[in-house]
Amino acid sequence: MGRVTFAQAVFLAIKGELPGDEEARMLDAILVSSVDHGVTPPSCLAARTVASTGSPLNAALAGGILAISKHHGGAIEDSMRVIQEAVRRNKEIHNTQEEMASIIVREHRERHKRLPGFGHRIHTRDPRTIKMFQIASDLGIAGEYVGMSKAIEGAIEKSSGKSLPINVDGAIAALLCEMEFPPELANAFFIMARIPGLVAHVYEEQTRMKPMRHIDPKDHEYRGIPERKL
Amino acid sequence: MGRVTFAQAVFLAIKGELPGDEEARMLDAILVSSVDHGVTPPSCLAARTVASTGSPLNAALAGGILAISKHHGGAIEDSMRVIQEAVRRNKEIHNTQEEMASIIVREHRERHKRLPGFGHRIHTRDPRTIKMFQIASDLGIAGEYVGMSKAIEGAIEKSSGKSLPINVDGAIAALLCEMEFPPELANAFFIMARIPGLVAHVYEEQTRMKPMRHIDPKDHEYRGIPERKL
Amino acid sequence: MGRVTFAQAVFLAIKGELPGDEEARMLDAILVSSVDHGVTPPSCLAARTVASTGSPLNAALAGGILAISKHHGGAIEDSMRVIQEAVRRNKEIHNTQEEMASIIVREHRERHKRLPGFGHRIHTRDPRTIKMFQIASDLGIAGEYVGMSKAIEGAIEKSSGKSLPINVDGAIAALLCEMEFPPELANAFFIMARIPGLVAHVYEEQTRMKPMRHIDPKDHEYRGIPERKL
Amino acid sequence: MGRVTFAQAVFLAIKGELPGDEEARMLDAILVSSVDHGVTPPSCLAARTVASTGSPLNAALAGGILAISKHHGGAIEDSMRVIQEAVRRNKEIHNTQEEMASIIVREHRERHKRLPGFGHRIHTRDPRTIKMFQIASDLGIAGEYVGMSKAIEGAIEKSSGKSLPINVDGAIAALLCEMEFPPELANAFFIMARIPGLVAHVYEEQTRMKPMRHIDPKDHEYRGIPERKL
Repeated sequence: MGRVTFAQAVFLAIKGELPGDEEARMLDAILVSSVDHGVTPPSCLAARTVASTGSPLNAALAGGILAISKHHGGAIEDSMRVIQEAVRRNKEIHNTQEEMASIIVREHRERHKRLPGFGHRIHTRDPRTIKMFQIASDLGIAGEYVGMSKAIEGAIEKSSGKSLPINVDGAIAALLCEMEFPPELANAFFIMARIPGLVAHVYEEQTRMKPMRHIDPKDHEYRGIPERKL
Repeated sequence: MGRVTFAQAVFLAIKGELPGDEEARMLDAILVSSVDHGVTPPSCLAARTVASTGSPLNAALAGGILAISKHHGGAIEDSMRVIQEAVRRNKEIHNTQEEMASIIVREHRERHKRLPGFGHRIHTRDPRTIKMFQIASDLGIAGEYVGMSKAIEGAIEKSSGKSLPINVDGAIAALLCEMEFPPELANAFFIMARIPGLVAHVYEEQTRMKPMRHIDPKDHEYRGIPERKL
Repeated sequence: MGRVTFAQAVFLAIKGELPGDEEARMLDAILVSSVDHGVTPPSCLAARTVASTGSPLNAALAGGILAISKHHGGAIEDSMRVIQEAVRRNKEIHNTQEEMASIIVREHRERHKRLPGFGHRIHTRDPRTIKMFQIASDLGIAGEYVGMSKAIEGAIEKSSGKSLPINVDGAIAALLCEMEFPPELANAFFIMARIPGLVAHVYEEQTRMKPMRHIDPKDHEYRGIPERKL
Repeated sequence: MGRVTFAQAVFLAIKGELPGDEEARMLDAILVSSVDHGVTPPSCLAARTVASTGSPLNAALAGGILAISKHHGGAIEDSMRVIQEAVRRNKEIHNTQEEMASIIVREHRERHKRLPGFGHRIHTRDPRTIKMFQIASDLGIAGEYVGMSKAIEGAIEKSSGKSLPINVDGAIAALLCEMEFPPELANAFFIMARIPGLVAHVYEEQTRMKPMRHIDPKDHEYRGIPERKL
């Protein structure tokens, strides 16, 4: 207390060692990146739905966390495994990252499997990835995993002509690899990051909304503080 | 196994004694009454939302159960407390059920409180209540609690001119009182009854629906077996 | 209500059709077999632990259900898959059940995998299996899946000299196969069966135990109604 | 990302405004204070029990959160309400904090109610409280709520002769009051703080422990990194 930030304590609890200053700031950025994503994610809908029946805050948060699974947040773990395997195999065969990335992309295409952590509904470059990789670069954390991740992004574009940018899941995956967290814990970081957002949603549901209302994620308005420079 | 039905085993687990044949059949009717209520209840939406993220069946059911709370299913417990108190007070003051019911209705009106277990969005008489009370009457289970419940229904109509019929929650409440279950366990019966319905919803979500779809309870179609005489 | 038992309604909700009388009685036996197993199973400990902190009944039940997973109840699903595969393969190669069972046992041994649904810490014959298979036989439900299950039990003994009897999970697995339920729903039957037992445990925790007590599953006494003939 | 710490983002998500630097550091200290408390708390036991059955990380965390309720973490909210009421009433009657504190202590004694947030099994002064109040004082955050909290501590000792020190729950309560968080969200801070600890426990259970083991909180050994200066 008073000596470390919460993010440093998170690192200590999970790794057993305090992070260096660079890792601490990187972890802060990763956690901040995923605090909230509006009303539409299933974790938010599940939490609000539970809250709307009069269940207490902890039950609503538990409901939300149960919806953070394979298809919601799960791409981080899957992406970590792909990047880790690519880096590991590349150490054996001494290819360039570009050659290894091409192999990975071709293998996924042949198995008709999507590469987790790449592609975005709207963006051709994900602004969160750009920002996080910039921070990682400034902090000296971006290494072979970030490099491999970018090489795969390039290989996808080369092979398909389409731009499937590294998305926020893919960026977090590469950075958790750089900090040597195990893929099995990828979901933990997404859950820890998202809880404060879920708290805010549940509290709004409990204090401003009618119990048992029909929750329509497409029909909502923002009643918070107007947009301003923070 | 082989000697008792599941409903009898439920009774035994909770009460510590096997039910008589009449109670067993009454409990079967109560549990059957609440197995499913379509896509709209929050328990169903929470369970389907959790399932849509790839979470396993038990997690989806847990999510659904977390939404069976004060405003969803909770009226059974509240109604049991009202009916029990009315019957208890009536034993002290030796009124008729009608007089006691009038007092209860007046007290709630003065405190601007709704009487839990009465009223229905559509029906002026709830067909499930009629059926369950008929069964209770045939089995010799309907007694002073069912009587008090009907007396309150009458007193509401007399006092307000409006028909707020005993709804399915109120009917179950009166019958659980007759069988001497504690109000604290009212929710258990609703949860036990609703689980099979939730299982069917979750299984449909897992096997027929796309992951992470937008679940709109107002936009759905029934794909099951067409209506027929069972 | 009034026309079908709860077990019949369970069958209807999941299958879309009412069961025949034999299937209804078989399902009753399956559900009754798993209502409770004392204080030691993790589902009970999780539910009691949650309840001991003052969380409501539905939260405690959700906690319990979250512990009904791969290693607790999960053997039913695994066993269904083994038995189904054995029956399916046997239809292709027209072996006797004994020959097919030997192949299955040998394959598992070679892969150093345990056969799910076989073996018991105490019993060399599981009394619940004997009873359920007797009921299945009387009702005309025991068919090729029960047969294959028994053939595997025999093949294990022949191959290893050890008796690994069909346990309650294996028996339920064979019977759910006979009634053509999908393995994906095996866990649903265990959860539905166990909920009433969990309700009784949670209610005891809430009404007789001190909050936040140290729950030691090895240190408990039974305070219910003394043993008697039911 | 890159501009605010995770604790600042937590504050922003819940309050709608970024904290000042002092509040940010205070919130860091509050969250760090509650990251872990060993194997014995029910949240840890519930999470480990769920994990021991093979359930995934998110289900185990949900199980743990369901056990963070009235008797486990709930004293923070209760203590906030007591302190807030004392400060509010004191503004009306213009007593000294000491006089108001005496009234509060007397009222609780007369109603045979414990004052939440005071007392510790071992310590006569809780070292975490001392540290957090020191930080609050250094940051200029300690105000009338911390003052009232200390006045109540003094009034208890004066009235009973016994030392019931402000414990960690009481200290967090006073500090959340100073930062104008609503008591309804007290549990959110405890849950957010405890998740990283639960993640570490669950990961150990999943990777080092046998499935379905008997989890005895009194029988464990620490296998982490030896004690050292951080």
